[in-house]
Amino acid sequence: MAFESMNTLPKCDANYTALSPTTFLKRAAAFYAERTSVIYECTRFTWGQTYDRCCRLASSLVSLNVVKHDVVSVLAPNVPAMYEMHFGVPMAGAVLNTINTRLNAKTIASILRHSGAKVFFVDYQYVPLARDVLRILTTDTADKSMPLVIVIDDIDSPTGIRLGELEYEQLIKKGNPGFVSVPVDDEWDPVALNYTSGTTSEPKGVVYSHRGAYLSTMSLVLGWEMGSEPVYLWTLPMFHCNGWTFTWGVAARGGTNVCLRNTTAYDIYRNIHRHKVTHMCCAPIIFNFLLEAKSHERCEISTPVQILTGGAPPPAPLLKKIEPLGFKVTHAYGLTEATGPALVCEWQAKWNMLPGDDQAKLKARQGISILTLADVDVKNKDTMESVPHDGKTMGEIVLRGSSVMKGYFKDPKATEKAFQNGWFWTGDVGVVHPDGYMEIKDRLKDVIISGGENISSVEVENILHGHPKVLEAAVVAMPHPRWGESPCAFVALRSNAEGAATESEIIAYCRKNLPHFMVPKKVEFLPQLPRNPMGKVLKNVLRDQAKTFVLSESQQTAVDLYRNDQQILALSRL
Amino acid sequence: MAFESMNTLPKCDANYTALSPTTFLKRAAAFYAERTSVIYECTRFTWGQTYDRCCRLASSLVSLNVVKHDVVSVLAPNVPAMYEMHFGVPMAGAVLNTINTRLNAKTIASILRHSGAKVFFVDYQYVPLARDVLRILTTDTADKSMPLVIVIDDIDSPTGIRLGELEYEQLIKKGNPGFVSVPVDDEWDPVALNYTSGTTSEPKGVVYSHRGAYLSTMSLVLGWEMGSEPVYLWTLPMFHCNGWTFTWGVAARGGTNVCLRNTTAYDIYRNIHRHKVTHMCCAPIIFNFLLEAKSHERCEISTPVQILTGGAPPPAPLLKKIEPLGFKVTHAYGLTEATGPALVCEWQAKWNMLPGDDQAKLKARQGISILTLADVDVKNKDTMESVPHDGKTMGEIVLRGSSVMKGYFKDPKATEKAFQNGWFWTGDVGVVHPDGYMEIKDRLKDVIISGGENISSVEVENILHGHPKVLEAAVVAMPHPRWGESPCAFVALRSNAEGAATESEIIAYCRKNLPHFMVPKKVEFLPQLPRNPMGKVLKNVLRDQAKTFVLSESQQTAVDLYRNDQQILALSRL
Repeated sequence: MAFESMNTLPKCDANYTALSPTTFLKRAAAFYAERTSVIYECTRFTWGQTYDRCCRLASSLVSLNVVKHDVVSVLAPNVPAMYEMHFGVPMAGAVLNTINTRLNAKTIASILRHSGAKVFFVDYQYVPLARDVLRILTTDTADKSMPLVIVIDDIDSPTGIRLGELEYEQLIKKGNPGFVSVPVDDEWDPVALNYTSGTTSEPKGVVYSHRGAYLSTMSLVLGWEMGSEPVYLWTLPMFHCNGWTFTWGVAARGGTNVCLRNTTAYDIYRNIHRHKVTHMCCAPIIFNFLLEAKSHERCEISTPVQILTGGAPPPAPLLKKIEPLGFKVTHAYGLTEATGPALVCEWQAKWNMLPGDDQAKLKARQGISILTLADVDVKNKDTMESVPHDGKTMGEIVLRGSSVMKGYFKDPKATEKAFQNGWFWTGDVGVVHPDGYMEIKDRLKDVIISGGENISSVEVENILHGHPKVLEAAVVAMPHPRWGESPCAFVALRSNAEGAATESEIIAYCRKNLPHFMVPKKVEFLPQLPRNPMGKVLKNVLRDQAKTFVLSESQQTAVDLYRNDQQILALSRL
Repeated sequence: MAFESMNTLPKCDANYTALSPTTFLKRAAAFYAERTSVIYECTRFTWGQTYDRCCRLASSLVSLNVVKHDVVSVLAPNVPAMYEMHFGVPMAGAVLNTINTRLNAKTIASILRHSGAKVFFVDYQYVPLARDVLRILTTDTADKSMPLVIVIDDIDSPTGIRLGELEYEQLIKKGNPGFVSVPVDDEWDPVALNYTSGTTSEPKGVVYSHRGAYLSTMSLVLGWEMGSEPVYLWTLPMFHCNGWTFTWGVAARGGTNVCLRNTTAYDIYRNIHRHKVTHMCCAPIIFNFLLEAKSHERCEISTPVQILTGGAPPPAPLLKKIEPLGFKVTHAYGLTEATGPALVCEWQAKWNMLPGDDQAKLKARQGISILTLADVDVKNKDTMESVPHDGKTMGEIVLRGSSVMKGYFKDPKATEKAFQNGWFWTGDVGVVHPDGYMEIKDRLKDVIISGGENISSVEVENILHGHPKVLEAAVVAMPHPRWGESPCAFVALRSNAEGAATESEIIAYCRKNLPHFMVPKKVEFLPQLPRNPMGKVLKNVLRDQAKTFVLSESQQTAVDLYRNDQQILALSRL
């Protein structure tokens, strides 16, 4: 009876509205109309103006025959147009596809082809790259439909550079500010399409729903405790998971977006100082830029700047150096498939009492799930069992919840593989500490399995990075006749130290600092490590090279002796 | 093509989970297990323990034959059991019905009957009241099914008082800590049933969905900017819209709930001091308690306590007095049907520059919509047009969004009436200021319509409250032969001033401070105003009385002359 009546209460327009991040803009325009929304060099907009411009953009897209769920691609740095597209494109009912500007023409062409992009916006700076992309698309005889190209000239200092006939500001001028957004019929509808970087495979198209984007935005604003009226500096490219959802989040908070074409240390310091920046996101590599800036490139930071960092754990020495400059770092872990950060290393008040080294160690952990993830766990994929919370036992990190992607576009096989047994399998290997905080140890495919022992390549690399002569290092598996795999290190030395370090010196250093079975059995020196356009080390290339290495007899024996000792020890404990 | 493929991506357990506020507890237990969750006098629990207790409670309810969507009612102050029920009851699949402890036995009996409550939890303090309730239910021959009664003894200092055989702590002890929550099949499923106070009509049962409760919780934590690890003092009864959703919100933030049986000034100050309280919600009436506390009842407040207030706009003089004591007030407006606060008067940094009086005036406004409301507006119900943003034109406040109730339980007529034309009609009359902030002027039914002019009874009351001899005042419509209605004031004088004020003195005072057409044409003195158990003035009683009043000829003429003047003036302007 109770059941009947309470459940048959009707959903209606008044009590059930589709969750969509575009609603944050409408609200910002209603309540923060006069507040500054976007700053880019000498250009400034208010939330009232940004809403007006996004309505115009959406109406122009519709008049260009963009229809519901068409893909609109964009190749641009963090300029105002890029920000506006995060609202204007979905307001036209279309799906936003932001493309990594560091990719090569061939990859971009394949993304445009795979996504079936109807419109292709190109910032003037990337016109030469886009020309190459279009050439590839045109010569591809299998594909007759070309996207409509629209160039985005610099709004602050127009260059006149064009590609095709249309230019972004024309579209805005001609647009209708009274345009009514194409309604979101279902919050499960797509809002964005983001291609993964693909270190080992073809880029995959990750589809976000309005619901997922909305909930992720809410959780990240909450997880980072971003208060009202933030001044957000766009150091993180918006093409990374829609700026880890902060494109939408800054609107939700009625904040100010400080747009940035180039992320040089000078530009970052200058903008922080000039606009009293309160928040920014970036990879830890940006810490190096900030620390290595020359004195004339720096400005004083009067109030602390909150940094959310991810992509790689921030090394403790960097954390200790960056915070005294006026930055307060929060560490997050995520991936494109999780709509950006899925774990945030939420700080606990009691940790403030600990010594700096311990604090840095705690901060380097990836942390706890954001609020809208229903569940996070670390599992043994074979047994489906959760690993014990001992900070040691490794398993694959799995996620579940409404901020996980809809799936991979036109790739049911990959989608099925990603979603198994009710979880999204991240492909990252981690541990759970006794306090429930998680720490990533490696990418699944980078784990070295030696005689049944899992070796985290990241842990070995961390030790190698501590060697004074090592600039960068990557550790991969090499074949071993008895143990299956053994660690092999690729090392680039600091320029002032070249030739000065030997293989045996490096190995001796590792022996001092690592359990013996984790010590690389071979060290190969390279002038620099091979990287993809995202800056990620191409471990598959190194692995291919390591496959050709053969251990000398003495190297084999050393390992075998060690293993035998270990096994005897293990047996004696039973 | 794009449409087809992106939309057919499957919802699965990994990427689509029902939004439910109970997930906040599970997360708190995973990541804040050792942190204090609940404090009540000498009793303390951690989040790990609270989760354990809620699992036990849920399992015990299931073993008492509570099945999905059964109603579980509770009559209790803000004690730990009341908090735990906000998770334990929905974890058993049931719907939580918290009952206002200030209601009389007859009303409580009618709520239990209307809701079909299967279980009735009663705090020991309310056993005498509950006995009366049960007597009414038993003598009601039409109803044979009685709820199972379970008493909640004081956990900190047990009294031994019983009603029926079962006691809450027994249930916890016997329960299964490994109980797996009854899954939420659909986030639209009911989670709570809250009866309105009903000043003029029968209480109506407002049904919340898991989705609505979840989203409201997120928005309110965001809207109030409640950071990590809050220490929340339970001054606001949890039976008010589930403590304005902070029952769930404190779990989401991994905070500490400081429970409070009695909200005396002494108890409030003592707990703030002892536990370093950071947040509390209350009606402005509590400000009076805090201000009037004697010195031995007070404690020093070392760090500012955030107060979220609502129910009535906080009068400016109160705000000016309360903030220097160490409280920082945020003003919100809501109603049971909106899952608590729907508008929050979000503070703008630029207002900090303004003089104190202007700040208090801005803070007394009800503000802007919380994030999960898709839309808020002030509309003329006849034309469905939005009022201009002039701070003057009145209309009815309407809401739309996923934090609005599912509807009224077993009352399709009232539900249909509340949801018209795609909006929830609040029955509150307000204006929109040029900056988009809203201000409530009156309850719709309390507006006095005089010759086509809307008069806000609240505005007239505000002026009357400024008269030094007036303790309390209520203004309602009285019939007028020509203008339809005129304002009539009911006034209770301060005890030290009784008999000293005359009708003409009060009217003269109003003439000095109000436009003439808003001046009460009659003032009736009462020893005190009639109020309902919630403390709300029963204006319907006063209206009935005012209907019997007849204006003298001179009173009529004065009004008519004024009106004629006004009309001539208006015509001359055309």
